[in-house]
Amino acid sequence: MCGGKYKAADMKQVKINDTFIGKYVDLVREVMIPYQWEVLNDRIPGIEPSHAIDNFLIAAGRKNGSFYGEVFQDSDLAKWLEAAAYSLACYPDPELEKTIDEVVELIQEAQQEDGYLDTYFMIGRQEEEWKNLYECHEMYCAGHMMEAAAAYYLATGKRALLDVMCRCADHIARRFGPEKDKIQGYPGHQEIELALVKLYEVTGNQMYLDLSRYFLEERGKAPNYFVHEWETSRKKCTFKTNTPVPTPDLEYDQSHKPVDQQREAVGHSVRAMYMYTAMADIARLTKNEKMYDACRALWDNVTKKQMYITGAIGSTHIGEAFTFDYDLPNETAYAETCASIGLAFFAHRMLQMDLQGEYGDIIEKVLYNVVLASMSTDGKRFFYVNPMEVWPEASRKNPDRKHVKSVRQSWYGCACCPPNIARFLSSLGQYIYSYDDSNLYVHLYISGEAKVETGKGAFVVKQAGNYPLEEQTELVIEEIPEDGADVALRIPGWCREWTMQVNGKEVKPDCLNGYVWIRHVEKGTKISLRFAMKAELMCANPQVKSDAGKAAIQRGPMVFCLEEVDNGKNLSAIRLDTNCEWEYHAQDQILDGIGSLWGKGFRRKEEQWGNCLYAPLSLEEEEILVKAVPYFLWGNRGEGEMQVWCRY
Amino acid sequence: MCGGKYKAADMKQVKINDTFIGKYVDLVREVMIPYQWEVLNDRIPGIEPSHAIDNFLIAAGRKNGSFYGEVFQDSDLAKWLEAAAYSLACYPDPELEKTIDEVVELIQEAQQEDGYLDTYFMIGRQEEEWKNLYECHEMYCAGHMMEAAAAYYLATGKRALLDVMCRCADHIARRFGPEKDKIQGYPGHQEIELALVKLYEVTGNQMYLDLSRYFLEERGKAPNYFVHEWETSRKKCTFKTNTPVPTPDLEYDQSHKPVDQQREAVGHSVRAMYMYTAMADIARLTKNEKMYDACRALWDNVTKKQMYITGAIGSTHIGEAFTFDYDLPNETAYAETCASIGLAFFAHRMLQMDLQGEYGDIIEKVLYNVVLASMSTDGKRFFYVNPMEVWPEASRKNPDRKHVKSVRQSWYGCACCPPNIARFLSSLGQYIYSYDDSNLYVHLYISGEAKVETGKGAFVVKQAGNYPLEEQTELVIEEIPEDGADVALRIPGWCREWTMQVNGKEVKPDCLNGYVWIRHVEKGTKISLRFAMKAELMCANPQVKSDAGKAAIQRGPMVFCLEEVDNGKNLSAIRLDTNCEWEYHAQDQILDGIGSLWGKGFRRKEEQWGNCLYAPLSLEEEEILVKAVPYFLWGNRGEGEMQVWCRY
Repeated sequence: MCGGKYKAADMKQVKINDTFIGKYVDLVREVMIPYQWEVLNDRIPGIEPSHAIDNFLIAAGRKNGSFYGEVFQDSDLAKWLEAAAYSLACYPDPELEKTIDEVVELIQEAQQEDGYLDTYFMIGRQEEEWKNLYECHEMYCAGHMMEAAAAYYLATGKRALLDVMCRCADHIARRFGPEKDKIQGYPGHQEIELALVKLYEVTGNQMYLDLSRYFLEERGKAPNYFVHEWETSRKKCTFKTNTPVPTPDLEYDQSHKPVDQQREAVGHSVRAMYMYTAMADIARLTKNEKMYDACRALWDNVTKKQMYITGAIGSTHIGEAFTFDYDLPNETAYAETCASIGLAFFAHRMLQMDLQGEYGDIIEKVLYNVVLASMSTDGKRFFYVNPMEVWPEASRKNPDRKHVKSVRQSWYGCACCPPNIARFLSSLGQYIYSYDDSNLYVHLYISGEAKVETGKGAFVVKQAGNYPLEEQTELVIEEIPEDGADVALRIPGWCREWTMQVNGKEVKPDCLNGYVWIRHVEKGTKISLRFAMKAELMCANPQVKSDAGKAAIQRGPMVFCLEEVDNGKNLSAIRLDTNCEWEYHAQDQILDGIGSLWGKGFRRKEEQWGNCLYAPLSLEEEEILVKAVPYFLWGNRGEGEMQVWCRY
Repeated sequence: MCGGKYKAADMKQVKINDTFIGKYVDLVREVMIPYQWEVLNDRIPGIEPSHAIDNFLIAAGRKNGSFYGEVFQDSDLAKWLEAAAYSLACYPDPELEKTIDEVVELIQEAQQEDGYLDTYFMIGRQEEEWKNLYECHEMYCAGHMMEAAAAYYLATGKRALLDVMCRCADHIARRFGPEKDKIQGYPGHQEIELALVKLYEVTGNQMYLDLSRYFLEERGKAPNYFVHEWETSRKKCTFKTNTPVPTPDLEYDQSHKPVDQQREAVGHSVRAMYMYTAMADIARLTKNEKMYDACRALWDNVTKKQMYITGAIGSTHIGEAFTFDYDLPNETAYAETCASIGLAFFAHRMLQMDLQGEYGDIIEKVLYNVVLASMSTDGKRFFYVNPMEVWPEASRKNPDRKHVKSVRQSWYGCACCPPNIARFLSSLGQYIYSYDDSNLYVHLYISGEAKVETGKGAFVVKQAGNYPLEEQTELVIEEIPEDGADVALRIPGWCREWTMQVNGKEVKPDCLNGYVWIRHVEKGTKISLRFAMKAELMCANPQVKSDAGKAAIQRGPMVFCLEEVDNGKNLSAIRLDTNCEWEYHAQDQILDGIGSLWGKGFRRKEEQWGNCLYAPLSLEEEEILVKAVPYFLWGNRGEGEMQVWCRY
């Protein structure tokens, strides 16, 4: 299982041309990437300064000044570069390329002689380099820049940034490792592990793969490096204040036990996801069975015990973290956008080892719910937290819920999510198809055209449909490898009624691990799929206390929600009728092309209550029409209450 | 309304002899007061040191060492002294009195020449006195010691502690006030305001009343004193660390606007309750109508919009504070014991101005639910937080819920609650009756005998019953004032079916504002009351989102709850049958003399779920017997889940 059997399609050869998701992909290219560039340059008035470019200008000696921003500010530029590179891969844009080349020159200039690159330390804190791995994000920033370097090289063939980051990786390899004269440490925020794998994949330099594996295998060994670091230096002197430095929380950054012995997701959820992604990379590339087993167990734990129905993860804002199995509070969820994107990365890596429908199921769940919800329909405002329930007054007045914003924010001081959305959506092509020696695998239903080169020739495949709004999807296999081949298509896990025609003839192949196989596909084969898009009430495992007595409405992979604008104030007074059919009203355009679901419900009567707080139980209700809209669209029509889980 | 029409009975003349509540009152005297004395002296092994006595020994120069504990550590001793004094008032105990006299001598010795008394500052921080009112609790500690002084004087006639605290009050009056050479400030934690009223009431010294009024009337005036203090000193230098001192949160300590303009409870709930209590005192003693109106509005806001069904208050642990109307989350409630005791103080003061059944209703709600729940049945372990719902694993693993303990703690570092319970229960006598010139008012049904002296002679009244476990209560008016008099008895707000006999004859007087009047009572009049103790399902105002679709079980003033030990794991899977009758099984002794309620319910089936997290809605349930126990007893039979609000 742990070998790398399946390869993702080259996103350069996947053109997305989809009425629904295409709009968002375009938004990233046309609005987000240019807008974020302005943000990085502090040219958007009224929002918190980023200073990301300025930090590099100062480090390069082109400008005077001091560092400003978070210790991980450099990563904002890196993630933007990565997103821009993906965008260039699919949509050549000489002006954007020129901008990137100029930035690369700046980064090159800023880099130290020895290969070190981190503006937070290069600007006046050189003596503190690598002294506080627990808090200081140096490898995190380097990792993101390595990902950008690999992406830009793949998009354009230009080596400048790649060379910069190889020098940086070489520097890190000289400083870290099992040898006595090196530091036996690893990053406080995982990220470089998966980035080094990318560097290995584009350069073929085994040292990068070894370093990634070293960081993973060293992590959590006793004695713990972060405890050692705390005892020897951090305890006495810290980079921020003079208050006593608390002992490191080892679960927080998943260094509490060796990574291949971990079975339950704990701690900071983005750190966890990036680490699991790298673990899957290492399991795949080094055929490490123990690592694979850990990945499988962690995957199951996250997706079957600690994930919200939208694909969001992270049950508490304290530490932006996982809590424990079945603890999925709705009002206080952290549910960070970046964490779900990390979960999609993890799924994507698992899918390269093992053909299981659940990986694609989670990628599409995250895509159509969390990722789209986290951005406004104009691409300029973002959620960091993606809650299951919002009461605007509580977000303002109850400090336990102040992390839950009721309106999207323009850009955050800690701006990790928007560039993560940009890099995910602009590289979406790679998630749609994968292949092995002779077969094509279809994971996502997104219209467009792709060329997928296998070892034995290329597939050319066209998809047309309006998934997941409409039921019908068509695929035409326009070219096949010389020897002929099989095509496997994912039957979404949510779908319990589907039909398939091959060249106009109804077929009913078995569904194996979430995929149906069409054997010996010929050139020009037409595959028609119909996935019944029936709205359904979903419920959670009874161990999820927060969802007891509640249902969520789902249609296809999309979770729906109730909003105040459609259903009036106090959504908690509404109870869904479990017997009614939910009708999709495509013509009730909540926003361009997106309809709503109409169903029946009941509402508790409020009139007679007056100033009374508690009274003998009254079951009086009135029947009402309930309107639900796709979760990803919430908060686009003014501020108001929102609720995913509804009483029944 | 705002004058002081009604006076509380003198607790010295109220003997409690009640099978039910008497046991807890005895526990305070026999266990808690002696135990807490040992704690204050650091003689209980294995618990966090108190150092409260040691701090006084050091301040008095009898011992070397430095201050240890919280900035408000002195108040632990003060509250213990107050509780012990109340206990002495009703139960003479020469040994306890001797102990107190020795402590008083120590306090006297520790007091500074100028009257100042606070060991935190007297031990090496003299130059910082009165410099940080926002954080430093000097007046809070002084206030508690004043309450102790008044109580000990009333109990024994001994003036020593009273004189110490009058000197302290005189010192404060020299330092604070409207005059130019004084500080125009007020305490960061209200308490001294109500204590100065007590000092005024025992000494007759008008200056103390004026100072109390000054503190209240100055509070919240613009420019705000705490902002001024922050700008002039705290901003630059603080008593704890070198980190920047945040601007003061004016809602937190209710200094955001003048107190008589406040209409909504905000901020730290104990601070709020102590302040409202003092406001009611000032409204009563100075006939201040604006202050009375503010008290009424705040009372309504707290009890009709921000109170849990148990009488607990404080919806968030962040700031131990109120949030806003109808925001009453069950799992994350703060619901501090001290806050509810403060609410009872407030009710007691309001009851001295205005005969309204709701005041007694809240006192008994707080007593039979929060106060009793906060102590273990052996009187040695305590809850600080009194949640509506407990999931032990969440208390351990979800940091948003770590303040919610699933087992009572032996004593807290911040030990405010146990001595507050002790002083409340040991002074319970004063809450049972009040009087005016010629009438007797019965507020609580607690067996025993009392002499209540009115201006025109004394009532002697005997109560016998087993309220609120049994329905029948008897009162005999054994003596009446010479001119004859009326007796008014509270009909509890929860009670919708009651009968009354006077001297064996059924009567049905009108219930006016929660009281029934018996006119021209004669010596020897026997009043029999039967309050139907039918268990009922209660629901919350539909605006309380957290309780939507849920019911709480109540019998008499007691709220019941479900516990894991009776109903198995995962209480959230249980739904109550709304049609069943809940039977009280007195013989099912959960603990001495206390039975349980049995009813019908349904439980979601869990078997078929396996490793599945979300699935299409299934309504499958099995019928079960549900057993509920009085809330105040929860957590006395091992650790487990607990839940007040149950789905229906």
